[in-house]
Amino acid sequence: MKTRHLIVRTAAEVFCERGYHGTSTTEILTRSHLTRGALYFHFDSKQQLAETVATVPAELFVPPDGPVVLQCLVDFSLAHADRLATDVVLRASMRLSAEHGSGCSQDAALHEVKLRAVLLRLLQQAHSAGELVPGADPLEVTDVLMGFFTNVQPYWAKTTADLTHRLATLWRYLLPSIATAELLPRLRLHPGPAPQPARTGPGEEAAVALSGSVG
Amino acid sequence: MKTRHLIVRTAAEVFCERGYHGTSTTEILTRSHLTRGALYFHFDSKQQLAETVATVPAELFVPPDGPVVLQCLVDFSLAHADRLATDVVLRASMRLSAEHGSGCSQDAALHEVKLRAVLLRLLQQAHSAGELVPGADPLEVTDVLMGFFTNVQPYWAKTTADLTHRLATLWRYLLPSIATAELLPRLRLHPGPAPQPARTGPGEEAAVALSGSVG
Repeated sequence: MKTRHLIVRTAAEVFCERGYHGTSTTEILTRSHLTRGALYFHFDSKQQLAETVATVPAELFVPPDGPVVLQCLVDFSLAHADRLATDVVLRASMRLSAEHGSGCSQDAALHEVKLRAVLLRLLQQAHSAGELVPGADPLEVTDVLMGFFTNVQPYWAKTTADLTHRLATLWRYLLPSIATAELLPRLRLHPGPAPQPARTGPGEEAAVALSGSVG
Repeated sequence: MKTRHLIVRTAAEVFCERGYHGTSTTEILTRSHLTRGALYFHFDSKQQLAETVATVPAELFVPPDGPVVLQCLVDFSLAHADRLATDVVLRASMRLSAEHGSGCSQDAALHEVKLRAVLLRLLQQAHSAGELVPGADPLEVTDVLMGFFTNVQPYWAKTTADLTHRLATLWRYLLPSIATAELLPRLRLHPGPAPQPARTGPGEEAAVALSGSVG
């Protein structure tokens, strides 16, 4: 199992850097210091290896529960960015899912599709819950957020430590155009006490609002 | 010259799809139906080909002039998105510039760096001109916009027709957090009469504001 784990991790690194077509099993063997025999004991082909890397555990697409849907969306997206920043296999699955015709079966190569579905569903729920301003469109906001997540790819080989910070920055500029004026000051971009659905009180921290930006 | 143009264009297509490391001259020859002799008559190596593709004409980084800096920024960015959508050589130069160690010399591989510099300079000028709300930070907004432009890469092989539309959508959600409340309704996301610097009049079209989003 240790060898299998090493193969998957090394393959993910190479897929991240070079994509499916640019990856050779020779490169994976060179980096992992394994023999071809060891690789083929665990995997039949580059394609099977790609499918293993591309398959994302279903629980990663389960957003947290909470009284404010937009807060659940913000928390889920930041947690996903965090996981992408720290897990090269997850980053590789994103890249492989964006590379159509990368040899993966439909079921495996769905990171991008599944992530989009979660984001859209949460935004539609937020809309139904009256948390969005009239001009904010769930589909458009989903596109903007997916623009961020698919953009993780150019950064695969560079540092990804600031990924969560960059998403928090994006949220800070987006939320005034998305959340109702009543909800906006109660949303948090960092873990903290969950906001309550319909309470407004003085002295609450303006965790999101850009000072002076909405007025 | 016709052959040279065909080589550059075909190389750009392959660089776009597979990156520098995933590209072989054999693939370029197969797609362009040229002989190796024809290729090497014009270019010494894959590296020289990459440098030619990566070099972006300086005039593409000259923003338009106008009385409102934020409008110049919006217009410049949309025009650049338009060019990226229609010009595979420009998309390839973006990808190569993001791939460090892609064999290009420093001078050539600068699409990303040069674009970032233009965006940041315009935002700093907008800040100096009092066009930004206090919470809007030129560096942060530059990062958000560069997130959009480097994200062009995952779409290289897919349709890029909606690139300009997607950037206009991003701007529509961002601008309420960036532009002063006085300037916001006068900014345009589509070509039109240039806005004037300090005139506010009733009946002006709200070209940007999300209805009800800022209040």
